[in-house]
Amino acid sequence: MARIALDAMGGDHAPAATIAGALLALQELAPEHGIQLVGRAEVVRAELEAQLAAATSAVRAQAHRLTIVDAAEVIEMTDKPSVAIRGKPQSSMAVGLRLQVDGQSDAFVSAGNTGAQMAATTYLLKLHEGLTRPAIGTLFPSARVPVVVLDSGANVDCSAAELVQFARLGAVYAEDVLGRRNPAIALLSVGEEPEKGNAAVKDAHRELAAASGLNFVGNVEGRDVPMGACDRGPFDVVVCDGFVGNVLLKFYESIPRLISVLLGKSGVSKDQLALALGGLDYAAHGGAPLLGVKGVSIICHGKSSPEAIKNGILVGLRTAESRMSDHIGQRLSSTSEGYSA
Amino acid sequence: MARIALDAMGGDHAPAATIAGALLALQELAPEHGIQLVGRAEVVRAELEAQLAAATSAVRAQAHRLTIVDAAEVIEMTDKPSVAIRGKPQSSMAVGLRLQVDGQSDAFVSAGNTGAQMAATTYLLKLHEGLTRPAIGTLFPSARVPVVVLDSGANVDCSAAELVQFARLGAVYAEDVLGRRNPAIALLSVGEEPEKGNAAVKDAHRELAAASGLNFVGNVEGRDVPMGACDRGPFDVVVCDGFVGNVLLKFYESIPRLISVLLGKSGVSKDQLALALGGLDYAAHGGAPLLGVKGVSIICHGKSSPEAIKNGILVGLRTAESRMSDHIGQRLSSTSEGYSA
Repeated sequence: MARIALDAMGGDHAPAATIAGALLALQELAPEHGIQLVGRAEVVRAELEAQLAAATSAVRAQAHRLTIVDAAEVIEMTDKPSVAIRGKPQSSMAVGLRLQVDGQSDAFVSAGNTGAQMAATTYLLKLHEGLTRPAIGTLFPSARVPVVVLDSGANVDCSAAELVQFARLGAVYAEDVLGRRNPAIALLSVGEEPEKGNAAVKDAHRELAAASGLNFVGNVEGRDVPMGACDRGPFDVVVCDGFVGNVLLKFYESIPRLISVLLGKSGVSKDQLALALGGLDYAAHGGAPLLGVKGVSIICHGKSSPEAIKNGILVGLRTAESRMSDHIGQRLSSTSEGYSA
Repeated sequence: MARIALDAMGGDHAPAATIAGALLALQELAPEHGIQLVGRAEVVRAELEAQLAAATSAVRAQAHRLTIVDAAEVIEMTDKPSVAIRGKPQSSMAVGLRLQVDGQSDAFVSAGNTGAQMAATTYLLKLHEGLTRPAIGTLFPSARVPVVVLDSGANVDCSAAELVQFARLGAVYAEDVLGRRNPAIALLSVGEEPEKGNAAVKDAHRELAAASGLNFVGNVEGRDVPMGACDRGPFDVVVCDGFVGNVLLKFYESIPRLISVLLGKSGVSKDQLALALGGLDYAAHGGAPLLGVKGVSIICHGKSSPEAIKNGILVGLRTAESRMSDHIGQRLSSTSEGYSA
């Protein structure tokens, strides 16, 4: 039995999209699981009642699995991350995460201000021993299966030791949440040879090659990421700093738009296009767990549709049920490396 | 009248592709221009004669505009960059570049070992005053017009001062070779706000915002690059360090393959696909000038087809005729910033 706390106020289309996403999720979650809608109680209740009034009886029959948890404040997309900690202690983010601290919830899911979510999660749930920063692991669609790219935006300046920690975090994520056995870990660089890369990447390569308990397959290049494989074989996790990861993530997200522009001139039908680009739709892959914290905090895209929110909730459930966070703690304590940054 | 030196031995498909590219180029270059084929004279002559024997009379009629320049040594793709300077002084790269030093050639074009070409060019042609490293400016196809991304691989660790110099180099390239007036310069980062980015990018933003003689439009994100524009308008040049630029370049090059895989499942015809992806074909955009050196050295993709070699030769001509290198020297000497790296 899992209780998933959803930030009902988070995201560009909240609360309409978040509550619609919660209703979609109830249809897919096993009946023992429930969702906690965290936000301004009167706003959430009004939106929920309006959506239920227009819903089918099947949807209405599941509504008892929803709980409304009141949170008086809302973090805006333009608020600084620190607001989540000091400025608005009664925000839906802070309240939703405190449920987990108090043992009343198993996962937190938000499409709100990412910086604020990272700050609030790190402050309230705390990091596992040996870590100084959390990392965001994002799924990139590939021609094979999706690959985890991390860090994809939490840390813009990274040391070699941090890159090594990302490898460990990504390995557990791929194993627990994606079900990959002995996941193959790749290091993103500008050439496959160990001596290629910037200073941090070259040092990280040496440390990863010597690290125990990691299936490190060496460097991969930008061209390998969309394929999910390099000449030496497939990989599951791509390690990079958060600056490169974020640039790449946003670049990738714009590819469907580029393809639409290009194919618009070639007479391809809209149906063909939708079918081809469906595999690149990040909404289908749900949210990204903030890795390294003691607990579950799932980051969804600010533009999340109800479908994307639903998938974020499913990722939250999978992350909680697989006990990923516990496994990360165990894995880190069994290795001697710590952050040196 | 321009004389373009082509590294006949450089590239995965040399000398067949390079000589075929030279013959294609002769059909497009105005009759006063000539091409110098630099390489092992007997190998080049045999290949040229074989291709001419199979060519049309129109092609054969232009063959007198080709000169063979003997170079006893060949730099392999696996050679270290330093080989170009010390190990093989009679390589086609060294000989081709020395023609320019001696005033006997106006541009050098190669699809050979990029690291070796950078080293040999920097050593033989020298850098303009105030620079410590050259940069590679690569054209990225976009939904609008191609944008220059630099550095795209010459410098994996960059200071803020170097990023500012890339902006100046890119501006002259866009103006002279691409014909853009008052080109708009963007800085690649993880958010559009000036305070977003890693340490070097944040400092570079401040310096660029204060720099004179540059049309700096601020930060752009990964999603803006394939569009050639951000919310605030279009841009011509994207400044980033060579690690990020190289990862992005290789990622981009693999997109057509990804699209083929995705569209292969959707029933799109091969003709439609070819039409749509034609705009993403880097071969159509020719080579990338090595920026910052006193002279012209055009870097072509190692996999260059005859068409790509031809386009590299055309870029070499345009770079020489526009006097881009002189303009870079003038621009740098009129600004006070120098490399601090």
